[in-house]
Amino acid sequence: MTILKLRRVAIDTYKENVAYLHRNCSLYHSEGFQALSKIEIYCEDAKSPVIAVLNIVDDESITAVDELGLSEQTFEQTCASEGASVSINHAAPPSSIKFVHKKVAGYRLHEKDLMSICEDIVANRYSKIEIAAFLVGCVESGLDRDEVLHLTKAMIETGQRFDWGEKLIADKHCIGGIPGNRTTMIVVPIVAAHGMLIPKTSSRAITSPAGTADTMEVLAEVDLSTKELEFVLRQESGFLTWGGAANIAPVDDILISVERPLSLDSPGQMVASILSKKLAVGSTHLLIDIPIGSTAKIRSQSHALKLRKLFEYVGDHLGLNLEVVITDGRQPIGNGIGPVLEVRDVMRVLQNDPHAPKDLREKSLMLAGRILEFDPDVRGGHGYKLASDILNSGRALEKMQSIIAAQGPKDTPRQAGELKYCVLAQQAGVVSKIDNFQIAQIARLAGAPIDKAAGVDIYKKIGDKVKVGEELYAIHAVFRPDFNFSKAAAEKNNAYQISEK
Amino acid sequence: MTILKLRRVAIDTYKENVAYLHRNCSLYHSEGFQALSKIEIYCEDAKSPVIAVLNIVDDESITAVDELGLSEQTFEQTCASEGASVSINHAAPPSSIKFVHKKVAGYRLHEKDLMSICEDIVANRYSKIEIAAFLVGCVESGLDRDEVLHLTKAMIETGQRFDWGEKLIADKHCIGGIPGNRTTMIVVPIVAAHGMLIPKTSSRAITSPAGTADTMEVLAEVDLSTKELEFVLRQESGFLTWGGAANIAPVDDILISVERPLSLDSPGQMVASILSKKLAVGSTHLLIDIPIGSTAKIRSQSHALKLRKLFEYVGDHLGLNLEVVITDGRQPIGNGIGPVLEVRDVMRVLQNDPHAPKDLREKSLMLAGRILEFDPDVRGGHGYKLASDILNSGRALEKMQSIIAAQGPKDTPRQAGELKYCVLAQQAGVVSKIDNFQIAQIARLAGAPIDKAAGVDIYKKIGDKVKVGEELYAIHAVFRPDFNFSKAAAEKNNAYQISEK
Repeated sequence: MTILKLRRVAIDTYKENVAYLHRNCSLYHSEGFQALSKIEIYCEDAKSPVIAVLNIVDDESITAVDELGLSEQTFEQTCASEGASVSINHAAPPSSIKFVHKKVAGYRLHEKDLMSICEDIVANRYSKIEIAAFLVGCVESGLDRDEVLHLTKAMIETGQRFDWGEKLIADKHCIGGIPGNRTTMIVVPIVAAHGMLIPKTSSRAITSPAGTADTMEVLAEVDLSTKELEFVLRQESGFLTWGGAANIAPVDDILISVERPLSLDSPGQMVASILSKKLAVGSTHLLIDIPIGSTAKIRSQSHALKLRKLFEYVGDHLGLNLEVVITDGRQPIGNGIGPVLEVRDVMRVLQNDPHAPKDLREKSLMLAGRILEFDPDVRGGHGYKLASDILNSGRALEKMQSIIAAQGPKDTPRQAGELKYCVLAQQAGVVSKIDNFQIAQIARLAGAPIDKAAGVDIYKKIGDKVKVGEELYAIHAVFRPDFNFSKAAAEKNNAYQISEK
Repeated sequence: MTILKLRRVAIDTYKENVAYLHRNCSLYHSEGFQALSKIEIYCEDAKSPVIAVLNIVDDESITAVDELGLSEQTFEQTCASEGASVSINHAAPPSSIKFVHKKVAGYRLHEKDLMSICEDIVANRYSKIEIAAFLVGCVESGLDRDEVLHLTKAMIETGQRFDWGEKLIADKHCIGGIPGNRTTMIVVPIVAAHGMLIPKTSSRAITSPAGTADTMEVLAEVDLSTKELEFVLRQESGFLTWGGAANIAPVDDILISVERPLSLDSPGQMVASILSKKLAVGSTHLLIDIPIGSTAKIRSQSHALKLRKLFEYVGDHLGLNLEVVITDGRQPIGNGIGPVLEVRDVMRVLQNDPHAPKDLREKSLMLAGRILEFDPDVRGGHGYKLASDILNSGRALEKMQSIIAAQGPKDTPRQAGELKYCVLAQQAGVVSKIDNFQIAQIARLAGAPIDKAAGVDIYKKIGDKVKVGEELYAIHAVFRPDFNFSKAAAEKNNAYQISEK
């Protein structure tokens, strides 16, 4: 056995494992390994090897000739300390890669094929290009509904599962793509105020300007332990936290890290991604929101319908009570885009402020109403009225305040970023279109969600009349370079279409 | 403009551009960039930005807070020096990515679509996962023959082209996959001895145990300047060099760096890869060798025929005189696998040594004969006889010696590696099958082609009778860890099948 000394190299290589070997390593031929592209790393006492791609180093201060360097996330996986003895070997391709080839060749995958793909992915045996091959294969040959079902199961089973020991655990999910669409932070307090359990874990933004977790984080702690979650749920009937810390459907996070940069969106992957997360966190009743619009993820009624059927098929087979609502996705919901600005809109709705965005209020009430009807004691069609009562009476606001108190309040500044730039109408007329993708991109470039106070504040929506030079929206930023990136993007394409009529 | 200082980070990231930014960089938000996955790097005076994926650094000795680090190959592309002022920006996806999505969705690509994909690839605007998406899309939807033609043209036009100013420039190419198949080093001296021009540029091994360039390098310099190549060709009518230094069909090299680890082999990609290289180096007459066998790249006559038609279609449309021969690919050719061992076999054939491997000799004569018939003065069917005369008379050996002298002779040791392990027959019978892939893998693990003296020496071929305990082949290695890797692989699967009869 030929032994190298383990070294942590302080480089964050995101979702890919990277190992560093000196070009003149006296024990292994670094170049032979690099061309073959992956290595297995064996630590003393470890049960299974860690797999990584190899970069060759020409600087002993990064990795010396008798060392094996590992990037931060790779180092953590070894559970060893610096200086530990490690050996390396050529990694064979993951054994499930044959099923990826089978999918690429257009064949149907069996339940066990998908399980072994997920097992290899979660064990970090797939490189990014192998994941890309799997995803493209799934898009191109398509996944039939049983494949989606089996992929969902495999993604649940390769991670941790929650069981709250309750018969009715409500949840909601929007398939995404609509900026400002922060209904969750209104729906959860309404539903919880009714006494229905709604333990809501959300994601942080990956390529959007804000996730519910990023936005809630302006108000409260969102990174709670399992024990704390249990406590808040029992006391408040609901919470709004980040789902990333627990090991819930970890395959999904790895797939997304490749899917997003490729802008690959396939219905099968989407359904498996959403339902695996929801089932793993123990939801029993789920409301899915599918917005339709020309710059939304789903662009036609017929696509939305097909997607609904797929959600229903998989949900039914996995024992989930699932309902789908199809909503208006032609433009952003509310006015603010970015954590601080979205918090402002949410709080205005909860406070029944006359300046609260009507579209956000109405959509939240409709969704909350549908969820309340999961309760056998609520008569069909009475959910909306019940939700309105809870909101109008101030009970939703009260519930939100006690959820914040229970999770741990934060005093993040609530002012939008001071660097401000107003985008003006170039012509008079009526706003006829707002490009969701472009407006999200402008908010993102302004620094959202990393700068909580950055984003876009929308003044005009579809159907509004505008004069030449009138303000359409403002960009807010904290950090000068981001401010400039965002302004430049808006100058190139301001996301608005104005018609003459 | 927000300026960072350029720094070269001594890490070799192979075919992917990587940039390093400190997590606490005071000028840019490193995490926002990482999630968006790619950045554009602008140097003063540079015409176009360099594109790279971003790794975040937590160690100022690798990249300080006011620096932008670049991996070795990325740094070279900037043509700037350390400490130069650079700014960065979010990189938009390459504009041609829409054509990748079009292919993934199953549509046919136009000539200009493929051209813009190749232009973006050669400008390093594609990440590895985007390249993987393109390749999988091509495999899965398939490329029709016009798409292959247009891809070939685009790959030629995005690189450098040679023009020797001659009417007949002969060339040969084997599609690969057969270990020990070093016919080129016999064919070139025969053809050149006849006076036909054969300027042969070859690749180094990527995933095989030896390329012609690796093997020729045991005898002579293979990395010649364009001027030197011209000189050797005029003086000797032929040369055997490495084609990698010149910028010939560079897109091909980038595609291969993703294709090989994925084991994706599509006929369209193969034809475009081979013909773009050949046309770019100025070949006018080309002989293609397609070996068939159960462990070769092509496994049936019907597949070989389809591939032949595709070569012919593209070759004809690009004005190349192209012939295809289909050969026996059931087992390795010759005895040695690995540069030094293959040189031994080649020299024995050229020296008419009675120990020369008959299969290597016969196959080389057949191929050389077919190439000689490109000469209008050689009567159809007389090429083989002419090739045999040249070989038997010693003129091929003489020509090889003067080509070596002209390229620059080398005195690389010619002994096979001293670490030797014999693989023995486990049962008596007749050798019925040799797995090309596995035997190549064993030779590769032994250290070939990086250790010239490493590899496998085959004693028994298909049809040979063996007794229990008789030697099938020997592994030779130089380096102890590689020796152990190779032995372990042979113990797991020795690549031989022995039947009772």
